Amino acid sequence: MIEGIFVPHVTPFDDAEEINEEALRELVEHFINSGIYGLVTLGSNGEFPYLSYEERKRVLKIVVDQTNGRVPVIGGTAFSSTKETIALTKEAWDIGVDAVIIAPPYYFKPSPRELYYHYAAIIEATDVPILIYNVPKFTGYNIPLEVINRLAEEYSQIIGIKDSSGLISRIGELIRTLGDKISILAGTGDLIYPALSLGAHGAVVAVANVAPRLCVDLYSAFKEKKFERAKRIQLKLNYLNEVVVKRYNQLSAIKESMN
Amino acid sequence: MIEGIFVPHVTPFDDAEEINEEALRELVEHFINSGIYGLVTLGSNGEFPYLSYEERKRVLKIVVDQTNGRVPVIGGTAFSSTKETIALTKEAWDIGVDAVIIAPPYYFKPSPRELYYHYAAIIEATDVPILIYNVPKFTGYNIPLEVINRLAEEYSQIIGIKDSSGLISRIGELIRTLGDKISILAGTGDLIYPALSLGAHGAVVAVANVAPRLCVDLYSAFKEKKFERAKRIQLKLNYLNEVVVKRYNQLSAIKESMN
Amino acid sequence: MIEGIFVPHVTPFDDAEEINEEALRELVEHFINSGIYGLVTLGSNGEFPYLSYEERKRVLKIVVDQTNGRVPVIGGTAFSSTKETIALTKEAWDIGVDAVIIAPPYYFKPSPRELYYHYAAIIEATDVPILIYNVPKFTGYNIPLEVINRLAEEYSQIIGIKDSSGLISRIGELIRTLGDKISILAGTGDLIYPALSLGAHGAVVAVANVAPRLCVDLYSAFKEKKFERAKRIQLKLNYLNEVVVKRYNQLSAIKESMN
Amino acid sequence: MIEGIFVPHVTPFDDAEEINEEALRELVEHFINSGIYGLVTLGSNGEFPYLSYEERKRVLKIVVDQTNGRVPVIGGTAFSSTKETIALTKEAWDIGVDAVIIAPPYYFKPSPRELYYHYAAIIEATDVPILIYNVPKFTGYNIPLEVINRLAEEYSQIIGIKDSSGLISRIGELIRTLGDKISILAGTGDLIYPALSLGAHGAVVAVANVAPRLCVDLYSAFKEKKFERAKRIQLKLNYLNEVVVKRYNQLSAIKESMN
Repeated sequence: MIEGIFVPHVTPFDDAEEINEEALRELVEHFINSGIYGLVTLGSNGEFPYLSYEERKRVLKIVVDQTNGRVPVIGGTAFSSTKETIALTKEAWDIGVDAVIIAPPYYFKPSPRELYYHYAAIIEATDVPILIYNVPKFTGYNIPLEVINRLAEEYSQIIGIKDSSGLISRIGELIRTLGDKISILAGTGDLIYPALSLGAHGAVVAVANVAPRLCVDLYSAFKEKKFERAKRIQLKLNYLNEVVVKRYNQLSAIKESMN
Repeated sequence: MIEGIFVPHVTPFDDAEEINEEALRELVEHFINSGIYGLVTLGSNGEFPYLSYEERKRVLKIVVDQTNGRVPVIGGTAFSSTKETIALTKEAWDIGVDAVIIAPPYYFKPSPRELYYHYAAIIEATDVPILIYNVPKFTGYNIPLEVINRLAEEYSQIIGIKDSSGLISRIGELIRTLGDKISILAGTGDLIYPALSLGAHGAVVAVANVAPRLCVDLYSAFKEKKFERAKRIQLKLNYLNEVVVKRYNQLSAIKESMN
Repeated sequence: MIEGIFVPHVTPFDDAEEINEEALRELVEHFINSGIYGLVTLGSNGEFPYLSYEERKRVLKIVVDQTNGRVPVIGGTAFSSTKETIALTKEAWDIGVDAVIIAPPYYFKPSPRELYYHYAAIIEATDVPILIYNVPKFTGYNIPLEVINRLAEEYSQIIGIKDSSGLISRIGELIRTLGDKISILAGTGDLIYPALSLGAHGAVVAVANVAPRLCVDLYSAFKEKKFERAKRIQLKLNYLNEVVVKRYNQLSAIKESMN
Repeated sequence: MIEGIFVPHVTPFDDAEEINEEALRELVEHFINSGIYGLVTLGSNGEFPYLSYEERKRVLKIVVDQTNGRVPVIGGTAFSSTKETIALTKEAWDIGVDAVIIAPPYYFKPSPRELYYHYAAIIEATDVPILIYNVPKFTGYNIPLEVINRLAEEYSQIIGIKDSSGLISRIGELIRTLGDKISILAGTGDLIYPALSLGAHGAVVAVANVAPRLCVDLYSAFKEKKFERAKRIQLKLNYLNEVVVKRYNQLSAIKESMN
């Protein structure tokens, strides 16, 4: 089971807006040295919607190569198109990711039935362990809990969910219904300790880009039942999350749009 | 400091849509016997916007009289009008409430400056301890944290805030900035344990209308550091909250609208 | 049938935040002299949610007295409470308004069934002609078209609707289904000419507070089939609406909140 | 200047979810025979976000080839990535489209400055006439009017905007500020006649997929000053728009997601 703190790391570009391989390899080293439990490559912080198919493949290759099995690598392979998602998911598996994480189609707002078939089609066409990625801030909608439950019940290939709704109630419901079966991962930095308290298995949080050790410390404190310490780190992270991550995200977006 | 589990109790009406005094007195006994830490009278569950000025006064009188000092009574005294809010707040104090809780103006969406002056005017015209009530689900907006911080810094009459945003990040920020000074109370049933974990002082939650003992148990488990038990109760409450409270709220609203 | 341009006039207050009777009487004269088709007293611009029951009665009395039958007066009588709405509606009728206009309950978001019963209860308890007031910007929801259709079909007391959704599609549907039976009035200044083009009967618009003659000119141009002129006035009003009305609304709200 | 009714035509797929070239060619004939003023290929109804780069190229080639200059073809070339948008825009121009239409980045919500630079970069890298496509229903945000104004003032390559906000006030402001300079096109079926009344140059509307002749009739009626007729057609289209287009859109989405 996926557990602990994962960093949805950024994708470094050079001045010509090409992927900066050297910086990316250094980033991988930096995070592994920080004690991170694993890497999520090409998540929202990795700016996946701004990268072409070929660029995404290249990023995955570099990260898998540099990591070299020291920690798990979870690769983001989502497109709005089911077909393209399947294609990149297969390639990611061949490249050697440990699992993939897939945001649902963006732009259109699919019905629950469409969402189910989108994920089912990907699962049936591939062999790779899959995490569902719920991120209403960017897609404009929440994946209904019924869809997630049905997929997790029917397909053992679903191994987890990253929930970035910011709602502890959703995470609580996911833990109550699926927490014994798949990994429930908090997707926003303000929720790490509250989610762990309710039984979540870990977190994939943007704030780990700027404070990986602090996030890992919080997780350790929780596992060692040092709750007062966990609480204090969480409140500190809340502040960082408000101040640094939001500013940071904006910078990364500006960087791209000005290319 | 206000601490523990408070019930924002409903207001019972008879078939003629008049306040049912007998049922209201029984309700007070029921909640006190359930071990509740205090009563919030005329909150959203008490349907305050549906009651006239005179009806609200009558409800406050009955509850204060029946409670007779056994637990604290916090009275809801909000109108959209600053003037009417001041008037009822004064009368509530004379009636004998221990504090009042005041939702901000509804219908219009005031600016931060207007919100500050609304609360400042109420505070300066009265002597009663005041809790701020943030409830975006009904008012359509969140009270900015800066407004709450400024009010709490300038006026010691502010003794707490009930936050029903459903966002643990907001509650975390309130704890970080004001938690040593005023009571931070979770306002939604899914957040009791997560909020307590971060340092909240208690909760005022609709689900306490249907499961007061369970809410009190959760609070006791937390205080006694029985965290596994607290977690299990919270997940159970999440389910109740989804299923019972939402259906219940709807019923109470239907009841009113059909009069 | 209600037709033409109505002004949802503001309510003037003095420095002590009391109703300024003299200024109110002057306002009535000003609007009648501007050629306005009628007055809507205690609409959103009249800040009805900020006034007590007694203050609202007083405003209605002054306006009806000053108008003295020269143009129709439509009085806003909405509270969140059905009971209070019925009470003020009856008093408004005794005071001598020509019709009332009623926004649905605010704060809570009633179900379609609850909305139907709210209006039905008011209609059955009174004899006054009623306009429904759809204003999602402030109430947080649209009154479903089915509810309006059902009320208009069952009760001839419903004589019109003011729709402030800002959606020409809603106004088009109201015209298609009810336009032969009741008055469909545009409720936002950007929609006067588009709504008239589709068959609306008139408009009740905040911008008439600052440019009553221009609004009346637009209506006249439309009736006289001077469409190029109507178009040019509308585009001018759009600009006024953006710049003046929004700033004005804010000022009036600040005025209140600082009392 | 782009004027009249354009159909944002669907993209037909076969059972294997491949582009159905024959059906696509028939569709082009069907719309040209219906008297349509032009084709918008790979708009939202063309499901562009679901198609790969290569598929999009193929669709553009087929439509340009089949149309063979009889009506203008406007090709949708938007990706979230600026780079990919530039690449496809260049290829579309080589393929022979008369103009391109570009929705802003989806998934992330760019700042006004980022939006400006995204479009500016595309313009500076290409020679093709460009229409901006504002579609908040799918992107989650409106392109600020200031950004559109600045782009239209600085670059003559901007020849129009399709606005699908559904807000006649936005379209009115676009007409007031840019209507003499670029084409302002209504993007939702309920707004055709209201927008024309205010001075819009035409419409690109989903409902033209199911009722192209009716849309063209409405435009003709307007140009011939048969306003009563235009009004009646618009109300009929409103109904069609509600009932048929929304159901249709859903079907097309289902079709895709089940592949």
